[in-house]
Amino acid sequence: MTQLLIKNTYLITMNKNKDVYENGNILIEDNKIKALGNIDINLINHDCEIYDAKGKILMPGFVNTHVHLSQQLGRGIADDVDLLTWLRDRVWPYESSFDYEDSLISSTACCVELIRSGVTTFLESGGQYVDAMVEAVDKTGIRACLAKSTMDQGEGLPKAWQKTCKEELDTQIDLFKKFNNSSNERVKIWFGLRTIFNNSDELIVKTKELADKYNTGIHMHIAEISDEIDFAKQRQGLSTVEHLNNLGILGSNLLAVHTVWLTNRELYLFRLNDVKVSHNPAAAMKVVLGFASIPEMLDKGIPVSIGTDGAPSNNRMDMMRDMYLTSLIHKGRTLNPTVVNAEKILEMATINGAKCALLDSEIGSLEIGKKADMIILNPNTIHCLPMHNPIGNIVYSMSSENVESTICDGKWLMKENEIVVLDEIKLLEKVKSQAEKIRKKANINLISNFNIIK
Amino acid sequence: MTQLLIKNTYLITMNKNKDVYENGNILIEDNKIKALGNIDINLINHDCEIYDAKGKILMPGFVNTHVHLSQQLGRGIADDVDLLTWLRDRVWPYESSFDYEDSLISSTACCVELIRSGVTTFLESGGQYVDAMVEAVDKTGIRACLAKSTMDQGEGLPKAWQKTCKEELDTQIDLFKKFNNSSNERVKIWFGLRTIFNNSDELIVKTKELADKYNTGIHMHIAEISDEIDFAKQRQGLSTVEHLNNLGILGSNLLAVHTVWLTNRELYLFRLNDVKVSHNPAAAMKVVLGFASIPEMLDKGIPVSIGTDGAPSNNRMDMMRDMYLTSLIHKGRTLNPTVVNAEKILEMATINGAKCALLDSEIGSLEIGKKADMIILNPNTIHCLPMHNPIGNIVYSMSSENVESTICDGKWLMKENEIVVLDEIKLLEKVKSQAEKIRKKANINLISNFNIIK
Repeated sequence: MTQLLIKNTYLITMNKNKDVYENGNILIEDNKIKALGNIDINLINHDCEIYDAKGKILMPGFVNTHVHLSQQLGRGIADDVDLLTWLRDRVWPYESSFDYEDSLISSTACCVELIRSGVTTFLESGGQYVDAMVEAVDKTGIRACLAKSTMDQGEGLPKAWQKTCKEELDTQIDLFKKFNNSSNERVKIWFGLRTIFNNSDELIVKTKELADKYNTGIHMHIAEISDEIDFAKQRQGLSTVEHLNNLGILGSNLLAVHTVWLTNRELYLFRLNDVKVSHNPAAAMKVVLGFASIPEMLDKGIPVSIGTDGAPSNNRMDMMRDMYLTSLIHKGRTLNPTVVNAEKILEMATINGAKCALLDSEIGSLEIGKKADMIILNPNTIHCLPMHNPIGNIVYSMSSENVESTICDGKWLMKENEIVVLDEIKLLEKVKSQAEKIRKKANINLISNFNIIK
Repeated sequence: MTQLLIKNTYLITMNKNKDVYENGNILIEDNKIKALGNIDINLINHDCEIYDAKGKILMPGFVNTHVHLSQQLGRGIADDVDLLTWLRDRVWPYESSFDYEDSLISSTACCVELIRSGVTTFLESGGQYVDAMVEAVDKTGIRACLAKSTMDQGEGLPKAWQKTCKEELDTQIDLFKKFNNSSNERVKIWFGLRTIFNNSDELIVKTKELADKYNTGIHMHIAEISDEIDFAKQRQGLSTVEHLNNLGILGSNLLAVHTVWLTNRELYLFRLNDVKVSHNPAAAMKVVLGFASIPEMLDKGIPVSIGTDGAPSNNRMDMMRDMYLTSLIHKGRTLNPTVVNAEKILEMATINGAKCALLDSEIGSLEIGKKADMIILNPNTIHCLPMHNPIGNIVYSMSSENVESTICDGKWLMKENEIVVLDEIKLLEKVKSQAEKIRKKANINLISNFNIIK
């Protein structure tokens, strides 16, 4: 048995009671939380690692509920362009040119950026090389729900991505059998649905059947742009959500991502069917999806979590930036400064994220028996002091640079700002060279508005 | 003569031609730029300091056009509350309890946070102890346009702030004579007008006369909240801007801050009179002012710059965060992903900022003969690589932690992440203890929604 005791810390549990210990301790045994608060000294073994976190804040690791691992090396290829250019001229050519190695480096870099921003669990929306993603997750020590991106129809799709419904389903069943619960149960395999543009009704219905059968989740972009609603109505006479409701796929294992264009009735359908929501504020603004009705969803009791989306749409995998944005944007939109307050943001980023990952019995709060996924924040920077209000400061003043340490499944992934699971300097070099290769392979040329002198 | 040569850098000049040298050099002599681009080797003295910035980006320092130095220690005292609570129960009691020492520590901390986020010039909207601000600016080496906050009327004002029009004007004339152009010309003294709520017509008109006489600027919050427009209309039958226009104070030396509630005609009045604008996106969302019409102002040619506002409304003095927000929020609001692009953001944060400071002949771009105010960005972090698009990455991927060095008036203020002008560790300790003292003195008690266990 391996033990780690972290002591003397400002400990935010995010349990039901919202207990915060001003001077708390937490004892980790193997990959689980053994004790917390005031700990019985007899529980501590003689070879327990003891870490003093005085003056720092310890809280559950964040759950980022929408990530595109295979877009990480495409950061910056699609800034300030309209959505069709974004998709068809930049992101699709880039991503569809990928091979296994590209995907592995991209996924590894993304995992490391997530770890640096305090994420211990993420939900991947789906790339092509799920095996490469599994390898990256295994190596970096993070927790993830991974899916394949499935597309069995749609205009303008790159050739490499044109598959039949059966091919898409078979691949996913194989992936599930091979990888679900691998890496000490840190890897979960989910079923993916890209969007209603790219998924046939057959694929949608069978995906739901399989997800129910294998007791896993479904990750889908839903009601992302207004064009999508028009498209759905033209095809079926119904909006995306009304159509999905008719197909019977709204349910507690469905994660709906973006959900910008929902009617009030559709919000009720989500609530009724316990649909989970991933809100992605940065992407929603930058790629211009619009403002989702987040305060309204939270008021109805819909479990809304936060996601960063992929690098070309955000452009960072920085949970803390998207937490800040979530609070800010909805205050601005509703002209009400009290909505989506700092405490609510912490809930969204931790326990709501765990609910969306279908893992709230195991992660999302610091409680005895739960998995030991947590982060240490160091507030001793000029941009964070004074600390009149620690919870507020986490959301409004800190940024990912205040995340000093990240622990997942009982293991240090980052300790005092140093990534301990791999050589980060080498990774940075690989990121640079591989990204350049892929951009050439995908034939993407960016033109600056500035006068570049070689 | 002191010389500093920075070589081998990605050099963004922000000159009229928008020249960018992929591998550029810049030679600083005393406090000015002596040469840049490909430099004649004969210009370089034998004792010139030579600094290699290979793999890094050098650009003009940012100009933050709206700051409240004396609110720095009030970070976190007013999160998630309505505007009246924010003002009357939190910020006013806090700030009005200040003495000289409080103001000096608050101002110094704010200057250091600004330096860390790449700011070399800021415009202070006005506190009470301008002499303490001057001391902080002098000590930290930054450049600033400072003003006193003036209030000669208004409901609910703290006693310490109740002054007559004459008192307010006399104080400012004294300050101008004493401090304008001090600290090697780094300090400029401006005239302050708080808001139309707190300023009589007499104060407004006489302030304009004095600013014109002394050839300096006026810093005023204008059209900040919808209540302000209602108030102005009730009092004068005209909105804030129409009334100010009638008083004859719209002019090229007026900096209008926030400007959220403007009609189209008022935008034209701004353009016609060359009024300068400071946009503060974080504060506008968090304290809920609303969305200013920034793309529309830029299209009309109004010089719009970016400001952070004070710590209780933002809660960071992080120019890079507000640059990012400016681009993001207006894309979202206008549903157009191409507006306020990355290049435009850099303009707003540099040369437009310099125009707003009335200093564009001296700062805001890197050109021979201008003051040597510049920053070095280090993009070699996992959240910033790859660099397909350096300009885009500055705005969308970097944050203040990528600001590695800050140079103002030819002197290093921060070098490779270390503040060199003072002992930052000691300052952090002072910030903690002083902030606690002030909160007690001002009798502000914050209540958490969480269950805090002592």
